[in-house]
Amino acid sequence: NNKFNPVDHPHRRYNPLTGQWILVSPHRAKRPWSGQDEKPSTALLPSFDGECFLCPTNTRISGDKNPDYQGTYVFGNDFAALMPDSPDAPESDNPLFKTQGVRGLSRVICFSPDHSKTLPELPVDKIRGVIETWNDQIEELGKDYIWVQAFENKGETMGCSQPHPHGQVWANSFLPNEIERKDKHLKEYYDQQGTNLLVDYVQAEMKDGSRTVVETEHWIAVVPYWAAWPFETMLLPKTHIRRMSELSDEQRDDLSVAIKKLTSRYDNLFECSFPYSMGWHYAPFFEADEETKHWQLHALFYPPLLRSASVRKFMVGYEMLAESQRDLTAEQAAQRLRDLSDIHYKEQC
Amino acid sequence: NNKFNPVDHPHRRYNPLTGQWILVSPHRAKRPWSGQDEKPSTALLPSFDGECFLCPTNTRISGDKNPDYQGTYVFGNDFAALMPDSPDAPESDNPLFKTQGVRGLSRVICFSPDHSKTLPELPVDKIRGVIETWNDQIEELGKDYIWVQAFENKGETMGCSQPHPHGQVWANSFLPNEIERKDKHLKEYYDQQGTNLLVDYVQAEMKDGSRTVVETEHWIAVVPYWAAWPFETMLLPKTHIRRMSELSDEQRDDLSVAIKKLTSRYDNLFECSFPYSMGWHYAPFFEADEETKHWQLHALFYPPLLRSASVRKFMVGYEMLAESQRDLTAEQAAQRLRDLSDIHYKEQC
Ligand SMILES: O=P(O)(O)O[C@H]1O[C@H](CO)[C@@H](O)[C@H](O)[C@H]1O
Ligand SMILES: O=P(O)(O)O[C@H]1O[C@H](CO)[C@@H](O)[C@H](O)[C@H]1O
Repeated sequence: NNKFNPVDHPHRRYNPLTGQWILVSPHRAKRPWSGQDEKPSTALLPSFDGECFLCPTNTRISGDKNPDYQGTYVFGNDFAALMPDSPDAPESDNPLFKTQGVRGLSRVICFSPDHSKTLPELPVDKIRGVIETWNDQIEELGKDYIWVQAFENKGETMGCSQPHPHGQVWANSFLPNEIERKDKHLKEYYDQQGTNLLVDYVQAEMKDGSRTVVETEHWIAVVPYWAAWPFETMLLPKTHIRRMSELSDEQRDDLSVAIKKLTSRYDNLFECSFPYSMGWHYAPFFEADEETKHWQLHALFYPPLLRSASVRKFMVGYEMLAESQRDLTAEQAAQRLRDLSDIHYKEQC
Repeated sequence: NNKFNPVDHPHRRYNPLTGQWILVSPHRAKRPWSGQDEKPSTALLPSFDGECFLCPTNTRISGDKNPDYQGTYVFGNDFAALMPDSPDAPESDNPLFKTQGVRGLSRVICFSPDHSKTLPELPVDKIRGVIETWNDQIEELGKDYIWVQAFENKGETMGCSQPHPHGQVWANSFLPNEIERKDKHLKEYYDQQGTNLLVDYVQAEMKDGSRTVVETEHWIAVVPYWAAWPFETMLLPKTHIRRMSELSDEQRDDLSVAIKKLTSRYDNLFECSFPYSMGWHYAPFFEADEETKHWQLHALFYPPLLRSASVRKFMVGYEMLAESQRDLTAEQAAQRLRDLSDIHYKEQC
């Protein structure tokens, strides 16, 4: 029987947001592994660590002392990748040696004073505080910068250099590659279809259900049809929202519930603190007259784990040189996450 | 003094092969690190391991027994990501749910019988054998497939699941993302300038010298102006060569010298077996009448290490969501590699 079946047959899926294809090899998940194991993060951290640069009242490398903060705490990254006042680079007329001067800044957002509590382990009202801080930072920096990337690297596997739960915002005087490309694809779809790509996508996913991981009153999290990372998800509002600032109080409250549920499912998958990089995409801060109705707010979660707390998916040789490749279908990944409890395993009794 | 200086001021550089920008933050390399350490690979491996699926005369998982090979040894990957006979996927008219059926296959290339010898540790004539095998595989599979990706994942950090030094070839019935994009950019340049982008680039780099790492009679390895990974390099022939099969015997001999020198410099940088993913790009096997003169053969090396054998660069949050970012300039990286001996540290006495 040689009828196509996405669970048995290699195929490619198209990501309409990037114009890129992903190679899906679902039959491949069975191969043996004698490669690198991650040490799963099961270490019990204290609520306060006197050596931590991010804990309240401690002194940072810069010599600045953190306040005795209760909610979130934001400070300028002492080792920022960007500077607000760097000079322009001279123009080159050689197309092989093009440089562009850039400006920007980078801030750290401590999620809470508690050194030991990651996003899924925080109470919903604390997550609500993180959402408010994301929004405040994006709106403030959006006055001066065309792009503000809010993101979190969670876990050592994701290059997180400080265990105290925190995220970052990087403000940019330019539109980064990924945003520029997404803008182009969203716009093209709008021009061709007369509708918003991601609003249409949410409608389709709500009807289908096979890729849904979490659904609340106002939000839906799916493993996108075109996911590259094994348990990648996308979290979207159900109505058309261009930026976080357009969310109602109710939608924000509900977002903290959705985040708590989604990240708890992640931790429950391998009963570990599930590493990921996550961040927000939304309408850039273009000049006032530029159209943004093709944009839809959404969060992206890119977790690297594949088989267990200690075996990850490597995006290496073939993936770097040719094309992203995954070892299970989006529907299989969603099913696995859906089959779990949305109560964090440490909070179950 | 606010005059632009690429060593002090953040800037972006343009990759003309991909149309993507890279954010360069050279002032950032000084930040402290309390994140993940890699275990550097210093384990002394035996020349033969009875448990290894890749050593001569051992039996693989498939039940097949490896011959008592002396040079390279090629076999079909027992857990291939692609199949030569998978069926086509049905067409979808929804632009949000596009699937494509694919065919292909995947083979493993053992570089030599010696379980303990990576590419830089092999004698030049053994490396020459690997080059011949790459070429034979690409030519053979190129008869049936439009693309054949030859690559090596070296080291556990790069997801290499078997310590016995080996590479892979993946044949594809489709043009993978990276190749399609590169084809487009090379072609555009040819149409606009009337010359070959990478041939022009080699000329410019030979004149400049500041990004050169290895230069032999027929080959040059540079940290490309637009490198994303800290010690990324590109290895190119000095003349116009579309595919490996066009290389003369002399150019092939000289390539094995260039590879030995380049990978020895890598190992010498942190005195460890330097992890990387590397692979070859060249003119795809288009239909006979399609033009390929805009293509130039080249190898790409993507090593993740940044500061030491145990501290890598993570391409995570900002990089995944927005844009690749690096912490030292291409010229600084080239200088560091150039300052080292091109004799492998284990072969020095
Ligand atoms: O085929 P291997 O060596 O088992 O697997 C390795 O290389 C492949 C091709 O780059 C990747 O898809 C895998 O994630 C990686 O672990
Ligand atoms: O800023 P951090 O947490 O020290 O650094 C981490 O996130 C950055 C932004 O994604 C990356 O550039 C670094 O490679 C990573 O280690």
